[in-house]
Amino acid sequence: MKVSRFPLSTVKETPADAEIISHQLMMRAGMIRKIAAGLYSWQPLGLRVLRKAEAIVREEMNGAGALELLMPAVQPAELWQESGRWEQYGPELLRFTDRHNREFCIGPTHEEIITDLVRREVRSYKQLPLNYYQIQTKFRDEIRPRFGIMRAREFLMKDAYSFHIDKPSLDETYQQMYDTYTRIFTRLGLDFRAVRADSGSIGGALSHEFHVLADSGEDAIVFSSASGYAANLELAEALPPAGERPAPGKAMQTVDTPGVHSIEDVCKALDVNPEQTIKTLLVEGADGGVVALCLRGDHTLNEIKAEKLEQVAQPLTLASDEQIRAAAGCGAGSLGPVGVDIPVIADRAAAHLADFVCGANVDGQHLTGVNWGRDCPEPQVADIRNVVEGDPSPDGQGVAKIARGIEVGHVFQLGDKYSRAMKATVLDENGKEIIIQMGCYGIGVSRVIAAAIEQNHDEQGIRWPSALAPFQVALLGMNRKKSQRVREACDALYEEMLAAGLDVIFDDREVRPGVMFADMELIGIPHRVVIGEKNLDKGLVEYKSRRGGDNQDIARDGIIDFLTSQLAQGRSD
Amino acid sequence: MKVSRFPLSTVKETPADAEIISHQLMMRAGMIRKIAAGLYSWQPLGLRVLRKAEAIVREEMNGAGALELLMPAVQPAELWQESGRWEQYGPELLRFTDRHNREFCIGPTHEEIITDLVRREVRSYKQLPLNYYQIQTKFRDEIRPRFGIMRAREFLMKDAYSFHIDKPSLDETYQQMYDTYTRIFTRLGLDFRAVRADSGSIGGALSHEFHVLADSGEDAIVFSSASGYAANLELAEALPPAGERPAPGKAMQTVDTPGVHSIEDVCKALDVNPEQTIKTLLVEGADGGVVALCLRGDHTLNEIKAEKLEQVAQPLTLASDEQIRAAAGCGAGSLGPVGVDIPVIADRAAAHLADFVCGANVDGQHLTGVNWGRDCPEPQVADIRNVVEGDPSPDGQGVAKIARGIEVGHVFQLGDKYSRAMKATVLDENGKEIIIQMGCYGIGVSRVIAAAIEQNHDEQGIRWPSALAPFQVALLGMNRKKSQRVREACDALYEEMLAAGLDVIFDDREVRPGVMFADMELIGIPHRVVIGEKNLDKGLVEYKSRRGGDNQDIARDGIIDFLTSQLAQGRSD
Repeated sequence: MKVSRFPLSTVKETPADAEIISHQLMMRAGMIRKIAAGLYSWQPLGLRVLRKAEAIVREEMNGAGALELLMPAVQPAELWQESGRWEQYGPELLRFTDRHNREFCIGPTHEEIITDLVRREVRSYKQLPLNYYQIQTKFRDEIRPRFGIMRAREFLMKDAYSFHIDKPSLDETYQQMYDTYTRIFTRLGLDFRAVRADSGSIGGALSHEFHVLADSGEDAIVFSSASGYAANLELAEALPPAGERPAPGKAMQTVDTPGVHSIEDVCKALDVNPEQTIKTLLVEGADGGVVALCLRGDHTLNEIKAEKLEQVAQPLTLASDEQIRAAAGCGAGSLGPVGVDIPVIADRAAAHLADFVCGANVDGQHLTGVNWGRDCPEPQVADIRNVVEGDPSPDGQGVAKIARGIEVGHVFQLGDKYSRAMKATVLDENGKEIIIQMGCYGIGVSRVIAAAIEQNHDEQGIRWPSALAPFQVALLGMNRKKSQRVREACDALYEEMLAAGLDVIFDDREVRPGVMFADMELIGIPHRVVIGEKNLDKGLVEYKSRRGGDNQDIARDGIIDFLTSQLAQGRSD
Repeated sequence: MKVSRFPLSTVKETPADAEIISHQLMMRAGMIRKIAAGLYSWQPLGLRVLRKAEAIVREEMNGAGALELLMPAVQPAELWQESGRWEQYGPELLRFTDRHNREFCIGPTHEEIITDLVRREVRSYKQLPLNYYQIQTKFRDEIRPRFGIMRAREFLMKDAYSFHIDKPSLDETYQQMYDTYTRIFTRLGLDFRAVRADSGSIGGALSHEFHVLADSGEDAIVFSSASGYAANLELAEALPPAGERPAPGKAMQTVDTPGVHSIEDVCKALDVNPEQTIKTLLVEGADGGVVALCLRGDHTLNEIKAEKLEQVAQPLTLASDEQIRAAAGCGAGSLGPVGVDIPVIADRAAAHLADFVCGANVDGQHLTGVNWGRDCPEPQVADIRNVVEGDPSPDGQGVAKIARGIEVGHVFQLGDKYSRAMKATVLDENGKEIIIQMGCYGIGVSRVIAAAIEQNHDEQGIRWPSALAPFQVALLGMNRKKSQRVREACDALYEEMLAAGLDVIFDDREVRPGVMFADMELIGIPHRVVIGEKNLDKGLVEYKSRRGGDNQDIARDGIIDFLTSQLAQGRSD
């Protein structure tokens, strides 16, 4: 493709509302343009990248035997009322009425539609398992769309839904989709991890998220230094400390700590480490009272875990200042487990401490040398903290590491959540009606593009993995305007590249070399070939990889072979 | 593909709401399933067909140098307010407010968005011409969606928009798109005509519609028996009759015609042909009065032409019974041009009559032997009728023929309608700001599928043109269940077919041959190969084309070559 026929619309300015690097680079590279909050147009350069991701997803889904269909984006309310989601879903579900005043929504997901289709088409266990997918533009009315296409309101999604007579069949397809996703993200050239995840509001049991690792990721992932274990921080178990709790060694003492509220202040005032302290949080209890949650001073509360405690009210709600004072007689900064008349739940690490420091339940006072079972009752013990780097890995193998990730895929076992509500059944071999088991499997195709950039960029711009690059090779000529030889050499090499089937963009503009170099680096073309007069005399062209390394002089007549082998290498990377 | 992995969901029953054959066959073949009024899911079989059409459209658009992008389906109201269409568009524009109460619509078309993009990106005449397109799901809230995907609310559209510094550049791209559409519909294997069309509400000047010819088409097309001329009936000119008007030969007489109102009744009562009669219609005039329109008895009013007359009120409105009686003193069935005190406009053919019959403007009376200029003033003459089969062709070459068509494509010259309203300008070579000229070019991709079926079917089902067939070859085995030889022969041939790159569907179900034959005919697979024991003994297989012709015995070892040559032929048909 020639730039004269495929105009670049790179810009120098970074838009003010672009907070993250992928958003900035996609705007600067001219891949997308903003139409309204959370609504973007994919310009030709961006769409080329999106279509490459889409093609890989489609190929692998077809290869896994999934059947592509295309359901309507607009969905009737009746089906959502059947599943109960019409009421449950928040305002991010775009609802509207048509000209006849019938209610519809633009679906962010299609469980209801596909379940309705399957219950109408499928009668017998012999017709199962089935796995349907579509690649479709979805809409979710985000309250605060931002980060460009990373959290847009309109986005391209691959959503798949599988149907089974029983759990073993669901397990099999689930594993197959897990493997397919692994192949997809591997082929896309991304550094990713599949992590155990809380299934959140969609419901069901087993669930994995696929995260592209990037410092800017919104989600924290715990993984093992020694095994393949990976889990969302929200779910990762903090193992109990090894060994017995040390015996008490000190007497409990009350110390004055005026103006000291935070753990940091306590450590400074009393010259202790956070690991020797306990912080106490009061939250609303399931019975209407309050509950004390105790954590080691250097740990943080895992709200998902805490919310699952039966003594605790759902959703997890911190006690108000009034509630705290009524229950403990002090402010939030002076709480502790000693002498309170409310349930106390200690995290495993906190419960393992001896001679610890905590608030005295008196404003301006702390206690030192405190010991469970001696100075206060033994607490109920639970895992309610977030894993931290250096903890033993939750699977017991190696040490926990923490990385940040961008969720780009998700596989769920839905079980019978939708099929039960919508009465999707089949007859089994004995003619008995059984409820279908379901799985669902999503990939944020447009989000993959942003995630790939978050993971692959430098100061000059995007550094596409081979599979996603809008073009594989950039062909540039130095001083084209003045040099007829350069122009002719470029034209000839361009034709050879096309004939060799190379995916090449040829910058045939008459602009300064610096402009061409900057543009091709910004838009991230993996391989650059430059033709200049000096090199031509020697029968050479200049090659540079966007991945780094120095300029290389390559024989003009060998450049096609050189590129072909570079590309083959890129694909197998 | 094996049927066991690509389940067919053919059904015997024709759904009650399926009025036209394409809707019936798409439902019966299991290509689509209805979700709600005008909303369909494209099932795997149907989607294969849709994707084939889409791929051809994309290939030809790219080949014509158009740039693919993807604009958001959801569009902000502000842009539609700028163009004025927010007010002008009827309730088929789906409007809604988001969670922040901002107004949006789901666009049936994207002129505003693309004009906004271009005015932001393009500054100089040097950047033009540009031609952008997208292939996207659109929504139009039809008041009465019907005919399946022929008039669905959600549909797949290819819409393109071109931008130019002047009319000659617009003309050039317009012609290029015209040629591209001709290539697209030719490659799709459709019998179609490009016709001059009224540009309707989108505005602008030159415009052609592309129609697939089919008896069930909603639009009438006039074309020449001798030239390439074709036009929408609404636009086709009815040429003036040749020669001078005959001189009066009879005296005017009043005859009693009690109870006679229609032309048919008049002809019967007075023993004349419709060609000798004049029928008179009263319509509301532009000045608030009424206007008489006179047509030959065998002709029909062309409302589009009549509405363009400056004396006539817009929109064209028939006078009420009260208005008729006030103006002419009689009912609608007794009107005529004699003795009325209102403007009379006669169609060219009506104005050419001598000694004609017409109403007497007295209930129950008609006049015979009437002549213009003698019995009533010479009328104003205009072309206000529809062309009929057998008229001279509007372009003067040959005779007019009339066919029915389904509109599947449309090319428009928009001129500066949107660019002027939205201030989309560029600087010309002299640094002067000029308003951009625009064209737009649409193809109803999903509608093409229905139109193809309307044109290609028989009693057994669909007969796909090669380019659209979901699979090219059907492979069937007789009595697979019983015969291991047949099963093995099928498996072996299937593998050979895949290796030869044939797009084959292999019916590996254990069902009766009649069921397989009926299914493959219903879903329209162009080439059928049947393996049976008897033939196997002779080293033969049975071949049949879905296009007709008898069964043929073909040597088993030559069947791949035979199919390959059949397919090559199909592609060049």
